[in-house]
Amino acid sequence: MTAPGRFISFEGIDGSGKSSQARRLAARLSGEGRQVVLTREPGGSPGAEEIRRLVLEGEAARWSPETELLLFTAARRDHLERVITPALGAGKIVISDRFADSTRIYQGATRGDLRATVDALHSLMIGLEPDVTFLIDMNPETGLARAAARGDGEQRFESFGLEMQKRMRRAFLDLARDAGGRIVVIDGNGSIEDVASRIDAAFAAHAGPAA
Amino acid sequence: MTAPGRFISFEGIDGSGKSSQARRLAARLSGEGRQVVLTREPGGSPGAEEIRRLVLEGEAARWSPETELLLFTAARRDHLERVITPALGAGKIVISDRFADSTRIYQGATRGDLRATVDALHSLMIGLEPDVTFLIDMNPETGLARAAARGDGEQRFESFGLEMQKRMRRAFLDLARDAGGRIVVIDGNGSIEDVASRIDAAFAAHAGPAA
Ligand SMILES: Nc1ncnc2c1ncn2[C@@H]1O[C@H](COP(=O)(O)OP(=O)(O)OP(=O)(O)O)[C@@H](O)[C@H]1O
Ligand SMILES: Nc1ncnc2c1ncn2[C@@H]1O[C@H](COP(=O)(O)OP(=O)(O)OP(=O)(O)O)[C@@H](O)[C@H]1O
Ligand SMILES: [Mg+2]
Ligand SMILES: [Mg+2]
Repeated sequence: MTAPGRFISFEGIDGSGKSSQARRLAARLSGEGRQVVLTREPGGSPGAEEIRRLVLEGEAARWSPETELLLFTAARRDHLERVITPALGAGKIVISDRFADSTRIYQGATRGDLRATVDALHSLMIGLEPDVTFLIDMNPETGLARAAARGDGEQRFESFGLEMQKRMRRAFLDLARDAGGRIVVIDGNGSIEDVASRIDAAFAAHAGPAA
Repeated sequence: MTAPGRFISFEGIDGSGKSSQARRLAARLSGEGRQVVLTREPGGSPGAEEIRRLVLEGEAARWSPETELLLFTAARRDHLERVITPALGAGKIVISDRFADSTRIYQGATRGDLRATVDALHSLMIGLEPDVTFLIDMNPETGLARAAARGDGEQRFESFGLEMQKRMRRAFLDLARDAGGRIVVIDGNGSIEDVASRIDAAFAAHAGPAA
């Protein structure tokens, strides 16, 4: 799809700073007079948020990985149709806090045998990839410390576990290597401002003059 | 998939007698001491029923055909995993009032360009087809008269329209012709007992001695 707008996603392990940096980049571009839509996954449209609630409520084993994958793909399709595609069509910059790479990583990390299915389902029902993805990369211990400071992250880290975060970091880096330049790895160490200036430089280099 | 049980579905236009005949066949086989699971779509498992509610509530244009297809496939996957596959694995006869052919027909009739997507999604995420499908075929006017007598059917017919029912009848017959013997067309005219004896004869001929 060649949309007149620009589609940017942020990815990375838990606590790596995706939401902070997505918000900050959106604010900066808005401040420069660009038309920006800041969105997130899972969710991002009213229908997708409802599907998200259906997936997340109840016990963990309520849905199989395959059913969960179908539900998240339904949510993504709704998000795409109702929010992303119209905004790109209107020439806006869309910044999404997570997108399809998160599914590739989480499903791949928990059920590696589903990875080919994830890709086939994406090609069949979604199709679109971001123009640029910023992968905020860091040591999971640093993310853990930040999430702990935020106060709500420890349970999440506990539920996934540090070992799982390490595996996901590795999987994100492997994905970036194979993505043919779409995924730009950003060093997530240092202050929010340090990371922001790396993203601004990468944005200028990768998101193109039209953005 | 070669399951020790037998998987039978009923299909046909609205009011053709699917529910009546599925119930009747299940009762007959149970009466002969077979282990039978009678189920239905959309729905058929607690999770699938919840997804069904999410799809059907709200305005008609709430979900796009693509999103709706993903949600129904998620429901079918849950139904398959929680109800159909375990029952077949235990050697039972599963009788489903509608299954994937209904999706092929309804999506095909309303969004013909989605038909290839429906098939690809089925292969990717469901895979299983019934051992035998009984397609109850009749004139839509007869179904309309029956549904009107039942008292709740007229609105449904009105919402789909007689022309749409005619198109769906044609699509079911085309599907049967191309299904390589899996779909057995049953003449749906006559009394419930008339149709039942046709189904019993077809069951003896097609559902095999193991069933
Ligand atoms: N560079 C940074 N240095 C220190 N703290 C940071 C930095 N970036 C973000 N934080 C803080 O770390 C916490 C996690 O950041 P944020 O919520 O942006 O991460 P995230 O990747 O969106 O996390 P999650 O995966 O949980 O959604 C927040 O409290 C945030 O203020
Ligand atoms: N052969 C028949 N002759 C007369 N009435 C019938 C016959 N078969 C079913 N009916 C009646 O017609 C109505 C519709 O039948 P039924 O509910 O079994 O159809 P269905 O295919 O399941 O319909 P729907 O598509 O609406 O679920 C019911 O009231 C039923 O009792
Ligand atoms: Mg976040
Ligand atoms: Mg019925």
